[in-house]
Amino acid sequence: MISESDILESFQHLVENQFQSDLVLVGSGDDAAVIKKQDKNLIHSLDISKVNTHFPENSNPEDIAYRSIAVALSDLAAMGAYPSFMTIGLTSDKKDIYWYKQFTKGVASIIDDYNMKLVGGDITYGELNVCVNVFGYPFKEPILRSNAKPNDLVYITGSLGKGRKGLLDWKKNKKSKYISDYFRPKVNFKKSKYISSLASSCIDISDGLIKDLNSICKSSGVGASIKLEKIPIINDINDLSYGDDYELCFTCEEKYKKDLNQDDYIQIGIITSGSDVELLNQDENINLNKEGWDSFI
Amino acid sequence: MISESDILESFQHLVENQFQSDLVLVGSGDDAAVIKKQDKNLIHSLDISKVNTHFPENSNPEDIAYRSIAVALSDLAAMGAYPSFMTIGLTSDKKDIYWYKQFTKGVASIIDDYNMKLVGGDITYGELNVCVNVFGYPFKEPILRSNAKPNDLVYITGSLGKGRKGLLDWKKNKKSKYISDYFRPKVNFKKSKYISSLASSCIDISDGLIKDLNSICKSSGVGASIKLEKIPIINDINDLSYGDDYELCFTCEEKYKKDLNQDDYIQIGIITSGSDVELLNQDENINLNKEGWDSFI
Repeated sequence: MISESDILESFQHLVENQFQSDLVLVGSGDDAAVIKKQDKNLIHSLDISKVNTHFPENSNPEDIAYRSIAVALSDLAAMGAYPSFMTIGLTSDKKDIYWYKQFTKGVASIIDDYNMKLVGGDITYGELNVCVNVFGYPFKEPILRSNAKPNDLVYITGSLGKGRKGLLDWKKNKKSKYISDYFRPKVNFKKSKYISSLASSCIDISDGLIKDLNSICKSSGVGASIKLEKIPIINDINDLSYGDDYELCFTCEEKYKKDLNQDDYIQIGIITSGSDVELLNQDENINLNKEGWDSFI
Repeated sequence: MISESDILESFQHLVENQFQSDLVLVGSGDDAAVIKKQDKNLIHSLDISKVNTHFPENSNPEDIAYRSIAVALSDLAAMGAYPSFMTIGLTSDKKDIYWYKQFTKGVASIIDDYNMKLVGGDITYGELNVCVNVFGYPFKEPILRSNAKPNDLVYITGSLGKGRKGLLDWKKNKKSKYISDYFRPKVNFKKSKYISSLASSCIDISDGLIKDLNSICKSSGVGASIKLEKIPIINDINDLSYGDDYELCFTCEEKYKKDLNQDDYIQIGIITSGSDVELLNQDENINLNKEGWDSFI
């Protein structure tokens, strides 16, 4: 049986030397962390990833850590913000210290990928559950969901269904380039920064394009008309409602079309004065109006 | 069966009207929250409270919310900081909407008590678990654990064992004034503010006086000599190591003794140049040196 202090020791390498950091003035070992003031508004998001709901039971612990943090970071990208620091509340019933060492490797890896600091954490025993809080600052002004206007163009930043295919392939033990799209989704901070100066609204496609675009429409009091044949999908039509893609969906005025190259930014439709997401499939019209919530923010 | 959106609706009253707030520039309903910049360093702490580990299974949901947040706030008080905003990651297997309504009442109650904003949250289904992140700003400078000096006086801000007695009484179905000390511990921000201008180190007594004072000693590279008869206890000697009190334990130079009234600030001993917490019981000396961790910050 491993002790709590064994587990915590395995986390120490993540929080060491943060005293010397420009950002973390007081880190591990005191009652609370002290984070240096910045002359920018703070952007915050929180995501819980739970075993069997958000990742499969026997996932690699490195991947569990990476994925749990990446999905939270994706919300910062959707706000036009870059990451700065984060916290983890880990509940785990694992009894093997190796599991924790692997988990912290995943944390170290994503911290390194996105140049963040881990400023705090807590560990308790129970059903596996990773509660991640991420914090960042806007590249320019935060890009809200509520500012899309009729005649704005609707864009996505990549193909849909990669995460879905990755999970299916992983379950089949099939070697596939899509597996990392599921377990280690890339967060589009580069594109987030670029569109910060032109987007009227933005969301990350975590719950499926239809539902997420519907959130923009609902918040902005508009509708959207989407051309199915414009959307690059990996599997089938269900890629539009599956989620787990973490691409960005954004809107902008038509005048910015020339600034958005077609390889990186795919125009899939237009904002309308309606209230639904209308999906056009050549001649056939499908009306979709899905609602739902995953969190209260 | 209740739906996720029923649950989230029960949280809406907590996050509504935050758009109008001076602090929360963007609240509920977008990818992330936007919190207004402040000209002060940010203080952060995180605590997970889990059913059967941190509170009994059949606790009142209002109390679960209140207590889970209060224990996190206590770390801010121990840093000489006042609270400003917070987030909740709630994992719950409750299927009764009434449970969630009661839980949010507890959140509303403590938010109101300490004048905080709830800036974000997430909910998922699973074993009951409340992951609370709290944020605040220092009254003056943060009070660290690492600055106690030999000959500093050691103080506590109240009697020990109240929470322990409260839980025992609650389990026995006994009416008792101590029950609220367990379920709704008061966080000493007023005293935290007062000692901010004189304390050399501070910690909250969440894990038991001996262990917590030992953390100050370890961080400061000093020892402490404590007089047992000076410590007001409610039950027995085990109150010194039980925890759940959330009083503050702090040190200060002797010159500040005159500024600390004996009713509110109880001097229990002195910092030494040793390395252990030495407990003096009239003639008998008991040497205690307990170590432990509850979190990696």
